[in-house]
Amino acid sequence: MYELYAFATPNSIKPAIMLEEIQQAWQLRPVNVRQGEQKQQDFLALNPNAKVPVLVDHSNDMTLSESAAILVYLAEKHQRLLPAAGAPRARVFEQLFFHASAVSPAFGQAGFFNRLASEPQPLAQQRFNTEAARVTGLLDNLLATQPFLAGEAYSIADIAHYGWFWRREFAGVSLDGLPHLARWFDTLSARPAVQRATEKLNAVI
Amino acid sequence: MYELYAFATPNSIKPAIMLEEIQQAWQLRPVNVRQGEQKQQDFLALNPNAKVPVLVDHSNDMTLSESAAILVYLAEKHQRLLPAAGAPRARVFEQLFFHASAVSPAFGQAGFFNRLASEPQPLAQQRFNTEAARVTGLLDNLLATQPFLAGEAYSIADIAHYGWFWRREFAGVSLDGLPHLARWFDTLSARPAVQRATEKLNAVI
Repeated sequence: MYELYAFATPNSIKPAIMLEEIQQAWQLRPVNVRQGEQKQQDFLALNPNAKVPVLVDHSNDMTLSESAAILVYLAEKHQRLLPAAGAPRARVFEQLFFHASAVSPAFGQAGFFNRLASEPQPLAQQRFNTEAARVTGLLDNLLATQPFLAGEAYSIADIAHYGWFWRREFAGVSLDGLPHLARWFDTLSARPAVQRATEKLNAVI
Repeated sequence: MYELYAFATPNSIKPAIMLEEIQQAWQLRPVNVRQGEQKQQDFLALNPNAKVPVLVDHSNDMTLSESAAILVYLAEKHQRLLPAAGAPRARVFEQLFFHASAVSPAFGQAGFFNRLASEPQPLAQQRFNTEAARVTGLLDNLLATQPFLAGEAYSIADIAHYGWFWRREFAGVSLDGLPHLARWFDTLSARPAVQRATEKLNAVI
């Protein structure tokens, strides 16, 4: 039995999709980040970094943060959606870290400076919009020659990237003119596990 | 025999340290990012994302980008500096992704807006300086109760975090008032493998 502390956010959806893909029993523990619940003491005891998601695995007495680390943990424990060795495995990690270090910060900062900044910062806004478009184009190029982001097989790399494309409107990112990425997004969106996860998280808004 | 395309950057130093730690033969292929060599066609053929480092492993016919993915690849191939299972392994991934998604973007953007922006963006500057200080404080707190960033043992999580603390001056980050982080940085800096790696990369500036 897993518990997932989460909200309807780009990072929270990743472990929710994974738990549905591997068909494990899990309990959603909503953390309303719009009301700042991630900064309350009881949540900080789970994750001092004040970010959702957090996974609790009672079978291993484990509390784990960082959405991609949770994906790796579940993939290795249940031996699903992460190749065991060689280039196929290395490509998954390459994409997990490309997402964490490039796509996610670009989308997050683009959304902040487009929507939330208390005064205009035009150079910052342009910087992050340009970067979001650049990394999105790189992903579209990858998908021109392979069905999934780490190669031939659906993997936790796809789940990691899906979160921000599910919430791309916040970042001001569109899939117009990116046919391969649009096809990939539709493929993932049609998966029953993805639909169950998004329904569960959308229900807590 | 490994080839490492790299420069004296926070991300390049990570696989260089790892290759020295595991005592593998490797050839440095300098990519002068100050002269834009990472955007030239021959480098883009290795990494369309136009970023160093890139590792080429001729024994596996593998070309791999993303510094942390390279660390994982080398750690698993040589069975070093990454625990095989359980909580110790999960904590390494938690720190690798905390570095990639939080520490590295905060330091990089703080450096950009403090030093390189063509016009002042005070809100952006404040945002990233505040975030760099916040994540640095979290690491210091972690190190108050454990010797290394993923727990009791030196691991690739320490190597990943080391890169930006080695280049913290660019980000405007200081270790003053952070005794645990300063102790950890000194411990790593004293390792012969770290010294050999930094000497090799500093020699190409």
